Amino acid sequence: MRATILSVGTELLFGQITNTNTVYLSRKLNAVGIDVMYHFTVGDNPERLADMIERSFKDCDIVITTGGLGPTQDDMTKETVCHVMGDSLVMHDDILDSIKKRMSAYKAVMTENNIKQALLPSRCMVFANDFGTAPGFALDRRNPHNPEKKQWIACMPGPPNEATRMFEGKVQPWLEELAEDSLVYKEIMTFGIGESDLETVLLPVINGQTDPTVATYAKDGHTSVRVASKRSTKHEAEAAVTEMVGKIDKIIGQYIYSYEGEEYSNVVASLLMKKGLSISCAESCTGGMFAAALTDTPGISDCFDRGIVTYSNRAKIEELGVKPETLNLYGAVSEETAIEMAEGIKNVSGSDIGISVTGIAGPDGGTEEKPVGLVYIGFVYNGKVECRKISRNIKDRARNRKYAMLSMFDMIYKNIY
Amino acid sequence: MRATILSVGTELLFGQITNTNTVYLSRKLNAVGIDVMYHFTVGDNPERLADMIERSFKDCDIVITTGGLGPTQDDMTKETVCHVMGDSLVMHDDILDSIKKRMSAYKAVMTENNIKQALLPSRCMVFANDFGTAPGFALDRRNPHNPEKKQWIACMPGPPNEATRMFEGKVQPWLEELAEDSLVYKEIMTFGIGESDLETVLLPVINGQTDPTVATYAKDGHTSVRVASKRSTKHEAEAAVTEMVGKIDKIIGQYIYSYEGEEYSNVVASLLMKKGLSISCAESCTGGMFAAALTDTPGISDCFDRGIVTYSNRAKIEELGVKPETLNLYGAVSEETAIEMAEGIKNVSGSDIGISVTGIAGPDGGTEEKPVGLVYIGFVYNGKVECRKISRNIKDRARNRKYAMLSMFDMIYKNIY
Repeated sequence: MRATILSVGTELLFGQITNTNTVYLSRKLNAVGIDVMYHFTVGDNPERLADMIERSFKDCDIVITTGGLGPTQDDMTKETVCHVMGDSLVMHDDILDSIKKRMSAYKAVMTENNIKQALLPSRCMVFANDFGTAPGFALDRRNPHNPEKKQWIACMPGPPNEATRMFEGKVQPWLEELAEDSLVYKEIMTFGIGESDLETVLLPVINGQTDPTVATYAKDGHTSVRVASKRSTKHEAEAAVTEMVGKIDKIIGQYIYSYEGEEYSNVVASLLMKKGLSISCAESCTGGMFAAALTDTPGISDCFDRGIVTYSNRAKIEELGVKPETLNLYGAVSEETAIEMAEGIKNVSGSDIGISVTGIAGPDGGTEEKPVGLVYIGFVYNGKVECRKISRNIKDRARNRKYAMLSMFDMIYKNIY
Repeated sequence: MRATILSVGTELLFGQITNTNTVYLSRKLNAVGIDVMYHFTVGDNPERLADMIERSFKDCDIVITTGGLGPTQDDMTKETVCHVMGDSLVMHDDILDSIKKRMSAYKAVMTENNIKQALLPSRCMVFANDFGTAPGFALDRRNPHNPEKKQWIACMPGPPNEATRMFEGKVQPWLEELAEDSLVYKEIMTFGIGESDLETVLLPVINGQTDPTVATYAKDGHTSVRVASKRSTKHEAEAAVTEMVGKIDKIIGQYIYSYEGEEYSNVVASLLMKKGLSISCAESCTGGMFAAALTDTPGISDCFDRGIVTYSNRAKIEELGVKPETLNLYGAVSEETAIEMAEGIKNVSGSDIGISVTGIAGPDGGTEEKPVGLVYIGFVYNGKVECRKISRNIKDRARNRKYAMLSMFDMIYKNIY
């Protein structure tokens, strides 16, 4: 099956927001074995939207839209899709009820606009929206040039948190039914090896490979390898993927922290919970990013006791008991300070694990001796004291902070797994 | 003038990389007064690329492409563009010379592939590439349906660092010559009012408005209003936008924190730095997100002293001096605890401002009395003690945490502005 991803929204054409739905949906559609042929973006304009839907159906079986389902005047995806697919909007009472419930839970007044959201194509399949008020839906029609064949359109709301969850919970299972082949894949997450190196060491298994496909990706400091097989049965595809993952494991096993595309923070949080280990952290250059990422996982309150962001030297001394002499002699960004911070947070919290980070995130504040990008991570657990030095000549504040945070998760993972 | 941004590359359709060129070019084209009508992405396929160029010219004057200019087999933008625009590739000796120089500077051997990069359309205008080997170019043709008018295509390499620099240095000046109108816009950022309400209260100024255009957007807990005017002179456009912003200000001024599309965290950080106010924070449910967002702004170390993430009750008592009786009597998620946390962090840090947050982020952990989504924010500054209660019946952990964090910035902003 061939698909077009069609994004609707004038704000995209203005460049006000980055279109993250498209890259997400591209990965997901490819993952269920659907070929993505085009990405189209149009503004909030019925004629151009209708024209691009028809253009998509010229060589695609399915169109996935995001955006334009909201309650305001410029949202016109539903009307336009009805027009193209030969249907009309009717009130869906069950959807109206659920919107009413949602609004009353918010203690919000139901407006004309909210009622409009329960208007959906008469013969559509509804995808309920558990994270917003605009439901999604799917609709089909006969291919006008080949009435034996069907064409589908699935419409989802634009906000990424709503679109991604609706896709995962509702649209993906529906697509898996539609797709003819079985696609199975693993997303192997790695840290500590760059994409070029990854590709080089995996070359013997990548080269000439048609199924399973093996592809490497780099994203925000970590790298991943996607192994995918499309076969006529799920069993065959699974066997092919498992065999290939085994080969890859032998080559890069030491860098792998997940086979399921998980975030490092979630992997570590789950591991801490599973092992019943408590943890506290002392952060400087990451400014709370580590604690924020760790506490992203529900239930982590059983393990995470406290985090202290000691931005000033005084805070490092007062909160963590870092010695003023250490700061004077070695500086705030040093192995000695990192270790005293980790020991300090372990002492004040009484947690099993104490972890710390201190560094120069940039873009300014570096010296020849201590350049921007220099980071030390301290780790104390079970009588063991460790420090990791990161020295990357990168001026980008956001990238340095992110990499330092990931390195903290890596240090914990490698020590407790 | 109307433009299509056309991205070429199968890797985009696989979702291997996020298309950042498109959002960048959209902003830039709008800024020079060119309307972006479509974003199209096609794979490395000559037929589909040619088809989408022709589709673009159906209602656009100009097509901007990125990608497919490289030296490898799958790069076929140049050939396809020549075919559509009625031209052919010829060797440009000056370009060949500059590629040779570049390669010898890198001590790299000139290959057949590198030579191929000096093949460009015979009547094109060349955009030299100072950051890579593939040059860009622009080409025109007569509009087949209206030979009085011209149609343009500009082709740039795909790597964002090459595309953005080529655009800024070479393509933008060329476009400014072509464009007839001036566009001016403001992005008004608001917090505390939903998109539906925003549209309702702004209806009198939105309705029937053609220039300036006024459009509302919702993104991740905050909302924004974009006011844009396109006139024959920049002065006229600015006057029209200023007048409209004044009208909007009268209606929703209390919700506005930026007229330039900034993040709330950056606005507050700048304000703190400008006023020379120091701040420390005590977070529970946001787990460090507030501190992480605040420290995203370079230079904030002058104002931000420390942040403490007190996830456990014990940490709240030990680190912030919250009274055990308060926790017993009112619970960790209460006005009383929030205020003691804010007072506590102000006391231990000695900062001018102490801010705290405690709440139930979810998805679990709520009770009938204290449901998921209940959040208290404490604020202490200059003898003033305040608490804000947020009560949204939302189960989504990420959204609750994000909204609580934004509310903290809002509370600071409203108190110190």
